[in-house]
Amino acid sequence: MGKGDVTRQVILERATQVASEVGLGGLTIGKLADELELSKSGLFAHFGSKESLEVAILEHAAERFVDLVVKPGLRAPRGEPRLRSLFDRWRQWPKVNAMPGGCVLVAAAVELDDRSGPARDLLVKQQRDWRDLLAATVRGAVSEGHFRKDVDPEQFAHDCHGVMLGYHHALRLLRDPMAETRAIRAFENLVEAARRPQ
Amino acid sequence: MGKGDVTRQVILERATQVASEVGLGGLTIGKLADELELSKSGLFAHFGSKESLEVAILEHAAERFVDLVVKPGLRAPRGEPRLRSLFDRWRQWPKVNAMPGGCVLVAAAVELDDRSGPARDLLVKQQRDWRDLLAATVRGAVSEGHFRKDVDPEQFAHDCHGVMLGYHHALRLLRDPMAETRAIRAFENLVEAARRPQ
Repeated sequence: MGKGDVTRQVILERATQVASEVGLGGLTIGKLADELELSKSGLFAHFGSKESLEVAILEHAAERFVDLVVKPGLRAPRGEPRLRSLFDRWRQWPKVNAMPGGCVLVAAAVELDDRSGPARDLLVKQQRDWRDLLAATVRGAVSEGHFRKDVDPEQFAHDCHGVMLGYHHALRLLRDPMAETRAIRAFENLVEAARRPQ
Repeated sequence: MGKGDVTRQVILERATQVASEVGLGGLTIGKLADELELSKSGLFAHFGSKESLEVAILEHAAERFVDLVVKPGLRAPRGEPRLRSLFDRWRQWPKVNAMPGGCVLVAAAVELDDRSGPARDLLVKQQRDWRDLLAATVRGAVSEGHFRKDVDPEQFAHDCHGVMLGYHHALRLLRDPMAETRAIRAFENLVEAARRPQ
């Protein structure tokens, strides 16, 4: 890493933190320049535009998600153990990642759904890739004989996403002390339903 | 309704539409004044502050939710029929409500989770009230004998919320044509699990 790359990483780290609290929309180049004690023109030299900065933040957050959730999760044995490993790390991600405002990708999903452009396109691709990976993992659990043959992997992946969004809502907005317990139970109910002989 | 009240309703309707697209944070008094061809000072006369406007938008959205989802839903017979009626109307709410940017309350939940103040407090109260109503409806389904006695009403209400957040995400961000089918299946799986004799 050259000095420019290090500076870029420092900027991105801080930008991701700020965006987790105020959203991508609330993050201005001016505000970020103040936070980092850099000039606005210096920031523009690194990112070129607000939209490029948003894209870079989404890439930065997704890279960390891959490092902390996906890669270690995939090391578990194929089938239900791998699905559990991915889910557990996903659930712990807000704690391990320790962004002041929770997951920037959850906030971005609501912010960008009405917009068009490269930031939205990237986020949609990231979320679809993650959903596809979950569905493929469920398919693995079916072919290992852990889950019934008629389990719908796409439905399971969709349901997992709902469980995690419900967890984020209960934890961060409602500050419900039962949030994590509820998320674990919801996931266990999905697994139990997928294992039950018909 | 006096003329002032009508003006206020027109302002709130437009403000809620704009907020559904750009979020509460993206809605400025100046932007809204331009949209409505009113003076900024005229808007301030109605709401006094940005935060009061945000509170008024949340109240406005929740009133409509009560009119379109809660009141008609509660007319169904107690127990599972009432739960289904509430869920169906909740699912159809984004279509019936027809806000350009989807449900402003979903967007606000992510925006306000890191803030403090009256807007956050109101939203938390609204969301808790709705969750309590769902849990009470599940309790009704238990006492009517539609659901098993050991069903956890709070868990069921939490799970329904997750189903709806997953639906919103799949529909609005991913533009998944299967979004509604997935939401219906997820709900049916919850109901089926609650009915199954152990």
